[in-house]
Amino acid sequence: MTDNNHSLADSRDSGASVLTGPGAAAILGRGKSDAGELMRRRTRSVGASLLFYEEPVHIVRGEGCFLYDAKGKAFLDCYNNVVSVGHCHPQVVNAISNQAALLNTHTRYLHEEVVQYAERLTETLPGELSVCMFVCSGTEANDLAMRIARVASGNHGAIVMENSYHGNSSLINGLSSCGYFLGAQPDYVATVEPPNIFRGSHRGLDETSGPYYATKIDAAIDQLDVAGHGVAAFMCDSIFDTQGTLEAPKDYFKEVYRRIRAAGGLCIADEVQAGFGRTGEAMWGFENYDVTPDIVTMGKPMGAGHPVAAVVTTPEIAEKFSRHAFYFNTFGGNPVSMAAANAVLSIIQNEKLQRNAESVGGYLKMKLKDLSRKHSLIGDVRGMGLFLGVELVSSKKDLMPAPKEAKTVAEEMKKAGVLLGVTGMFGNVVKIRPPLIFSRDNADELLDKLDIVLEKLS
Amino acid sequence: MTDNNHSLADSRDSGASVLTGPGAAAILGRGKSDAGELMRRRTRSVGASLLFYEEPVHIVRGEGCFLYDAKGKAFLDCYNNVVSVGHCHPQVVNAISNQAALLNTHTRYLHEEVVQYAERLTETLPGELSVCMFVCSGTEANDLAMRIARVASGNHGAIVMENSYHGNSSLINGLSSCGYFLGAQPDYVATVEPPNIFRGSHRGLDETSGPYYATKIDAAIDQLDVAGHGVAAFMCDSIFDTQGTLEAPKDYFKEVYRRIRAAGGLCIADEVQAGFGRTGEAMWGFENYDVTPDIVTMGKPMGAGHPVAAVVTTPEIAEKFSRHAFYFNTFGGNPVSMAAANAVLSIIQNEKLQRNAESVGGYLKMKLKDLSRKHSLIGDVRGMGLFLGVELVSSKKDLMPAPKEAKTVAEEMKKAGVLLGVTGMFGNVVKIRPPLIFSRDNADELLDKLDIVLEKLS
Repeated sequence: MTDNNHSLADSRDSGASVLTGPGAAAILGRGKSDAGELMRRRTRSVGASLLFYEEPVHIVRGEGCFLYDAKGKAFLDCYNNVVSVGHCHPQVVNAISNQAALLNTHTRYLHEEVVQYAERLTETLPGELSVCMFVCSGTEANDLAMRIARVASGNHGAIVMENSYHGNSSLINGLSSCGYFLGAQPDYVATVEPPNIFRGSHRGLDETSGPYYATKIDAAIDQLDVAGHGVAAFMCDSIFDTQGTLEAPKDYFKEVYRRIRAAGGLCIADEVQAGFGRTGEAMWGFENYDVTPDIVTMGKPMGAGHPVAAVVTTPEIAEKFSRHAFYFNTFGGNPVSMAAANAVLSIIQNEKLQRNAESVGGYLKMKLKDLSRKHSLIGDVRGMGLFLGVELVSSKKDLMPAPKEAKTVAEEMKKAGVLLGVTGMFGNVVKIRPPLIFSRDNADELLDKLDIVLEKLS
Repeated sequence: MTDNNHSLADSRDSGASVLTGPGAAAILGRGKSDAGELMRRRTRSVGASLLFYEEPVHIVRGEGCFLYDAKGKAFLDCYNNVVSVGHCHPQVVNAISNQAALLNTHTRYLHEEVVQYAERLTETLPGELSVCMFVCSGTEANDLAMRIARVASGNHGAIVMENSYHGNSSLINGLSSCGYFLGAQPDYVATVEPPNIFRGSHRGLDETSGPYYATKIDAAIDQLDVAGHGVAAFMCDSIFDTQGTLEAPKDYFKEVYRRIRAAGGLCIADEVQAGFGRTGEAMWGFENYDVTPDIVTMGKPMGAGHPVAAVVTTPEIAEKFSRHAFYFNTFGGNPVSMAAANAVLSIIQNEKLQRNAESVGGYLKMKLKDLSRKHSLIGDVRGMGLFLGVELVSSKKDLMPAPKEAKTVAEEMKKAGVLLGVTGMFGNVVKIRPPLIFSRDNADELLDKLDIVLEKLS
């Protein structure tokens, strides 16, 4: 999934995040702080953009896992998956600075940086995934992936999860079912129930769980066939962020991919969130499920904040697309973007961040499970590596979602100096998604403060 | 228009630009140069991306108006409108470096840089154009603009020029009629004849020229009404790059805007190419025509190569959109992007680049007109500021386009150390679009070399 859904989920329930408009009024009512004045100016010139928290934070500096506000207060960043190598990593800053001073131009001329990065990137990917197309954002990557899938399959339809988020272009907004409450679902999109073994239509984990949820694809394929669209692609976030940080049961993806391919569709792994070591056990989220997609999209952490993203596919599919469509991206693959991406990849490899995500993430998950035995509000702890979800329920018996409490947790943790998010179909899953340099000490700080906040809520 | 069309026009005629695939083979046949090896590696990992020139250049450094290849050869850059402040301007490099070292995060937290830039940017725009939405590319800007227009108008259709190019998302690819040879025109798009007084259906300039071409809009409106789409927007590149760098006759835009608005549509000025002083006489291309759009999109030179772009509209339209749609862009408006954009805007203002575009552009245009009297190949010289087109014809009498000669000019000028492009509906317009810091000396170098190349062609 391309973008975080924290404030989308929140804004639907007018919770922890607020629209700048009403939020601005709230802040202004509190007095003429600098933040209040900045908020007022922002509302006028940037419009109704979404800000986090009832009283937004005014961040001015970042370093490692910490962000600092204008008054010097430190916040442990357990939210930001863009700077997975940590805020302002010197190696990234140097790479950007040096290349920006040397050359920054489009890819109509030959340049070493883009070729080197493409080679290094595809070395991390399995099978025939060896052709890269560079773009500027996860949205552009998913939009291009879908265009490619339509050309390569000859079909038009897409299958996505319920409550999906894949980006904000016109096409990809249509594939983001989390926004359907704002408008109609396009008829070329079919949604399926996500494999939620905690509260889905098949609960509990056994060998039938994966195949059970995979059969949901059949009705979606039928729906697109009846509508005359056929299946161009199945697009899925390998970490199920907006569905509440699910772990798909064994064989789920295998069975889904088999069905999609039998219907003539392509399988697109949206690795914008799950990729680049986030899940700990693997460099790419889909590897946890032992499948190989036809197209992989990636973005967010790829340039540590520098706008860079990519689509990777097979030579055969790339060739098909290039015969039927023209694609060029002015900024995509430029030397500075590629220098940033090369630096990030080097840091992930040299600092063994995937392994860190596995070990610290494993430790954190274990400790969160300990907390769940202490706090009845915690219904479930799940996720992989350093992308964990803590689902809050007001009753463990009937699994009644507790979105209000989830928002309170986010607000109280912020006051305690820890930034985290809220996600899930009911806005009741506390999302923990820190930079991959997160240490055990950082985890302990998060756990101690979360324990106190949950204690107050019980 | 979001992107240059040089090689699109070229690739259709297999001219100056080549697909990496066949191009690679051609180069490899010439021997094992470093560029050849780089090309081979690029073809494998980056695929069939378009490169300029029969023998692509391998650029490694840029400074001011010059680019340098791996062997140290200098090229006067008369093509690159992204780095309008010149390659590697120290003020941009410093702004990016300093902010990247301090903080780079999303706009869910308050930050001064984005607010300051939005205020400065909207100060340069007329009327109620006061709300900014920041994105990463011209494509994202145009895609969002069209989404906004659909919500605000309640209609679905778009009117664009023939041979338009506005970007590469699925939606905007549909609004880029220059690619229709690759696939069907969507039924929600109607195209109109561009106001070409050199070779259009109404030739020569008089007071009827503008109104004449504006009436072409009526049939387009009817077409969209019959299709049941209505008119959501008219989207037009204020400099008509892909149509061959046209200057619209007096009252053209006024009459078009009047018709579009009467049909309930919005007027979108695509300033991705024409904006930020490029046309010399005005900061924004549409100002040359004394109209005020409902939505303005911008990109390319906005961050001097850093991927940043924007949509600016009125508070009323922004409010309508935010009530019916959710939009958030992870990288859009981040502190580093805004630092780059703030630096670029300061340089344009402090170094008086708009005025330079006017004076050097005026000088260059005058001298090109002198050349047109000497070389019968030159059919027309037109354009504004530092965006000029030299249309080549094999016969001035019947205006037979000379695309082959235009490509030869681009290739020969490259050999002579000058980079420029080819555009237009017939690929016969030599496009001159240098950085805005272009000096009279730079212009003289271009003119002298062009004179020699044209001499050889005659």
